[in-house]
Amino acid sequence: MANPSPSKLAFVPFVSVENMMKLVHHIGIETMLKGLADYIEDDFRRWDLFDKTPRVASHSKEGVIELMPTSDGEVYGFKYVNGHPKNTREGLQTVTAFGLLATVDTGYPVLFSEMTVLTALRTAATSAMVAKHLAPKNAQTMAMIGNGAQSEFQALAMRVICGVDTLRMYDVDRAATDKAMRNLDGFGFTLVPCSTPEEAIEGAQIITTCTADKQYATILTDNMVGAGVHINAIGGDCPGKTELHADILTRSDVFVEYPPQTRVEGEIQQMPEDFPVTEMWQVINGTATGRTNERQITLFDGVGFAIEDFSALRYVRDQLAETGLCQELDMIADPDDPRDLFGMVLRAKP
Amino acid sequence: MANPSPSKLAFVPFVSVENMMKLVHHIGIETMLKGLADYIEDDFRRWDLFDKTPRVASHSKEGVIELMPTSDGEVYGFKYVNGHPKNTREGLQTVTAFGLLATVDTGYPVLFSEMTVLTALRTAATSAMVAKHLAPKNAQTMAMIGNGAQSEFQALAMRVICGVDTLRMYDVDRAATDKAMRNLDGFGFTLVPCSTPEEAIEGAQIITTCTADKQYATILTDNMVGAGVHINAIGGDCPGKTELHADILTRSDVFVEYPPQTRVEGEIQQMPEDFPVTEMWQVINGTATGRTNERQITLFDGVGFAIEDFSALRYVRDQLAETGLCQELDMIADPDDPRDLFGMVLRAKP
Repeated sequence: MANPSPSKLAFVPFVSVENMMKLVHHIGIETMLKGLADYIEDDFRRWDLFDKTPRVASHSKEGVIELMPTSDGEVYGFKYVNGHPKNTREGLQTVTAFGLLATVDTGYPVLFSEMTVLTALRTAATSAMVAKHLAPKNAQTMAMIGNGAQSEFQALAMRVICGVDTLRMYDVDRAATDKAMRNLDGFGFTLVPCSTPEEAIEGAQIITTCTADKQYATILTDNMVGAGVHINAIGGDCPGKTELHADILTRSDVFVEYPPQTRVEGEIQQMPEDFPVTEMWQVINGTATGRTNERQITLFDGVGFAIEDFSALRYVRDQLAETGLCQELDMIADPDDPRDLFGMVLRAKP
Repeated sequence: MANPSPSKLAFVPFVSVENMMKLVHHIGIETMLKGLADYIEDDFRRWDLFDKTPRVASHSKEGVIELMPTSDGEVYGFKYVNGHPKNTREGLQTVTAFGLLATVDTGYPVLFSEMTVLTALRTAATSAMVAKHLAPKNAQTMAMIGNGAQSEFQALAMRVICGVDTLRMYDVDRAATDKAMRNLDGFGFTLVPCSTPEEAIEGAQIITTCTADKQYATILTDNMVGAGVHINAIGGDCPGKTELHADILTRSDVFVEYPPQTRVEGEIQQMPEDFPVTEMWQVINGTATGRTNERQITLFDGVGFAIEDFSALRYVRDQLAETGLCQELDMIADPDDPRDLFGMVLRAKP
């Protein structure tokens, strides 16, 4: 018997890396960063609705593979993401990712997507959305310490969402700074390469630390950081990996995504369990206070949370109807009679 | 600039439902069940090597969505699976699934596959592999109580692995029995439709219970089960769903996959926390005893464990080189310079 064509439900829209990049260019990277920030902000505002599970990590000597699930009660999402700092030595990405959305009511997937590019975009969109709430007003200059794979995304998101137009860039490897400067040429920034972290933070109202080594590092020491800045610390994002001296944390008001995860993975892993933090979603929905004065040091201890991936996947899903930038993957077996999976297999005999 | 073609690493072999069904027919369903059972048995034998995480479940009113990860230290695998008993009323599958293997050393995926069909195959292969160790010698007659989507797979696996040639079939819905009998016609069974569970178990050495309703049911009561049988109880597989009367469990020697999971999901959820069970992997590697005499009732309280999915994905991966039954999915962003993800996106501009 001929193999009957699978029903529409058998197919799941898949956004490949190629289609994700087409989507970025179709929408425009700055518009997309803004759109992602809006979706993320919307989901932070309804934070209470989400099922929040700490990520499920499988650690090995060389890295970690994680599953990050969440659900808002109607839609379920998860991301697969690895973190292997030594990968770059072999010409591989430190972080690769993909993700999925499904309908809670049926468990059927509705979107499968690459998320290596999308995670870079959502991480930057989250940082900038947070900086919009916490950074000093009219912050125009950002120090960018660490000019690796995430740096240009951070820069563009800070430009489109917060109005940053001057970047003071530092990396232990000058080639990384040169690469970032080449990539950011033409986006309207004043780009200032710097020889030391001290030089980079001169005059900056926002300091982004974004380095990749898995070790306790001290990118910023206490005496380097003056009053009235916003620190966007996104490189300290797994156990054993931090970037800031503990004294800076003590002087700052620290804002986090999800305390149970950040206390294990973030900069505050250096601090006692009861170190005071403010949950960012409460600042956004008005139940907690963000920046209160111009001398204050605000610090976003960003580690990346499942809800941000959920928001990003929602955003991508909402672009597909118009753009069609996806393939249909035959992922779900869907026999005419749901009790007759075996019969479906039998009838598929060539 | 033209979009450079992605490197080989950017692509992940994907086995669609269509290709999985082609694979089944290319290999032959009976040979494939035997092959899966061998891979599963091999992994049970090296059980100690595996990273065993309880599954991560997201429960809702209508069902559950689960992620089941595991790793043997070299290869990482996970399965996404939903369980929505009410789905069949809407013409959908109760269970759909897909899964992935990745290299622990780099975190890069190496196989992405449909697993709705594959889960049906591995569940049957597991049951039959266990029955090979526990059932009375020369068991030829099996009672099959519940003739839904899993039943034919169970029957065929029991035939090829244990030599079962007579099936006594019962379902509350006679149409399900008729469907299973049609599907199993031509596989060499003597098929006996039965009007009651009591009739079905007459003369059976193996009793498979495989019903789908999410409720505490009593498919078998104590007085129905005589001495010297093997019970393959696979329908009691989530909290609130059991099939056997507790008295049967008390009279049986109960064998399980992974006690922390089975005590929550299996038939033994009805029993005290210290109810004695034997771990099946210990029977297989010779450190625990299986069947000891002909009067004994052995009972496999199967709930499905991540390692079985891992084995099944390993098996499928090992068939791809020869059969080529997969597509290459552009899932992983792989820039030439791993620090230059942004540059890769920029250069993809159409």
